[in-house]
Amino acid sequence: MIDINKALEQLDWSKDPKGLYEPIAYMMASGGKRLRPMLALTAAEAVINEGLISGNAMDDVLPAAMALEVFHNFTLMHDDVMDRAAVRRGQPSVHAKWNDNTAILSGDQMLIEAYKLIAKVPGDKVLKTLELFNEMATGVCEGQQYDMDFEHMNTVTIDDYLTMIEKKTSVLIAYAMKIGGLIAGASNAQQEALYQYGLHIGLAFQIQDDILDLYGDPNTFGKAIGGDICCNKKTFLLLTAYEKADAESKAELLQWLMTSDCDEQKIAAVKEIFDRLNVRAVGEAVMEEHTATALAQLDKLPQNAATEKLRLLAEQLTTRNN
Amino acid sequence: MIDINKALEQLDWSKDPKGLYEPIAYMMASGGKRLRPMLALTAAEAVINEGLISGNAMDDVLPAAMALEVFHNFTLMHDDVMDRAAVRRGQPSVHAKWNDNTAILSGDQMLIEAYKLIAKVPGDKVLKTLELFNEMATGVCEGQQYDMDFEHMNTVTIDDYLTMIEKKTSVLIAYAMKIGGLIAGASNAQQEALYQYGLHIGLAFQIQDDILDLYGDPNTFGKAIGGDICCNKKTFLLLTAYEKADAESKAELLQWLMTSDCDEQKIAAVKEIFDRLNVRAVGEAVMEEHTATALAQLDKLPQNAATEKLRLLAEQLTTRNN
Repeated sequence: MIDINKALEQLDWSKDPKGLYEPIAYMMASGGKRLRPMLALTAAEAVINEGLISGNAMDDVLPAAMALEVFHNFTLMHDDVMDRAAVRRGQPSVHAKWNDNTAILSGDQMLIEAYKLIAKVPGDKVLKTLELFNEMATGVCEGQQYDMDFEHMNTVTIDDYLTMIEKKTSVLIAYAMKIGGLIAGASNAQQEALYQYGLHIGLAFQIQDDILDLYGDPNTFGKAIGGDICCNKKTFLLLTAYEKADAESKAELLQWLMTSDCDEQKIAAVKEIFDRLNVRAVGEAVMEEHTATALAQLDKLPQNAATEKLRLLAEQLTTRNN
Repeated sequence: MIDINKALEQLDWSKDPKGLYEPIAYMMASGGKRLRPMLALTAAEAVINEGLISGNAMDDVLPAAMALEVFHNFTLMHDDVMDRAAVRRGQPSVHAKWNDNTAILSGDQMLIEAYKLIAKVPGDKVLKTLELFNEMATGVCEGQQYDMDFEHMNTVTIDDYLTMIEKKTSVLIAYAMKIGGLIAGASNAQQEALYQYGLHIGLAFQIQDDILDLYGDPNTFGKAIGGDICCNKKTFLLLTAYEKADAESKAELLQWLMTSDCDEQKIAAVKEIFDRLNVRAVGEAVMEEHTATALAQLDKLPQNAATEKLRLLAEQLTTRNN
């Protein structure tokens, strides 16, 4: 198996001007799960002809896998500016450590760096990969826009929310799977199964993220607990609470949502309402549905060590704590 | 000749979410000289086999030409946020009309849209075009970083400045020429001549821009006159003044540079120092040198209506007033 961390470490950010590339190096070194490149590589392994796994065929997937991770980190760098998030992966976000302009421009350069990696995809696959990558990137920006729109909307349904997170989070994971499969020679049906697997684990992943924002372990989560409540973010938990609440609980919830300040008391009070309405269990049930849909896709693929890994990953998603 | 404005108007920005695409439509409709796509198309015309000009060969260049204009507008949208510029082409800049987050995210999407247009370049040229486009985009970001770095540096030489504007402005024009030529089948030597022509008219263009910022006609320039002096921007005029000034003028200049506020008085006083030191004439002389170098490149190309147009353009650059 290709070591994605090692490959990412070999990207050279020690270039001039330092002000442009040092924040990229900082962001790329800050860790993260490397989920997207790992998925692209595993998708490739799942469909590739057995005899080719150890050969150049897997190396062909690597530039695109790295492009997906660089792109993901670009979105985080810009999202942190837009969301005024001061902490990322347990350390200051780029705009907090440097400033907004640095995060904007270094983020722009990261997006370009992602396309430089896409340009390294082997000749017969580069155009199709570029097209898929463009569709993915558009989906992610549209998702971020819907997310920002929701802040100013009074009524957001759970369906609206699921459409938003499908674009903002799932599409990147789904295209990571599809691009990995495409470059490794997957059939159209296999590419579609890989895409759907990614889409549904992405949805499960994001709902889990909403849950962890409040119920996660502060030592391993890497962000402040209750941040979503602080900024009145319309998460799966809040929208479900709002849908399930009786008049009294709804009034109580709305009163807290009207305060733009945030303290421990607000987080505790809203959490108490969520607990009373059992919204965590609802979230976990929806997560499990999407996990099941994702797992069903794997039956359409060759059964090998890679598909087994994808099976385990989907199952483990529901028990992660960071 | 292909109508670049008509082609750009046909790009469809009436998509959802409106919050993402409306600022792009606004930016793209705000005009500008369409210099970069026009140059890409003219470069193609200059080198293309006479018999093919009216055929599909020119249509092949169009997506890349449009990509260059979309990219240029992306850089303006983000630069206006970074520079806190409230006016662009005589109307509110995107971040001023909407907000910073809108300008960041819609700008990101514009960069992606540029790559979508690059993906439409005919199959045998798409990879090389993508590589050139990536080099260009990197140069522009590096140039913007140097520009921002200069704000906080005490000593910037005129050479530093020329390196910066070469990246920030000229590289885009140079690659517009080269990409247009490449897609139209230019030889390597022709591509290099087209590139050098673009690089040098770009340098002349940027020095002219510095001059117009202070000496332009406020009715046609589209920006407030003296904006560069206001924000103590290290332009060709200021760096030349600083280099030419005697101790007394230097002290006077430094005193004005220490005020971060700006009013008519400051602009008039600094302009008076510039006039005394004759910096406008120095700028115009350097501009003319670069124009001459650009014109010399045209001798290496076929002599036809397109090269004649490029010759006129270089000559007219020195007399533009907006």
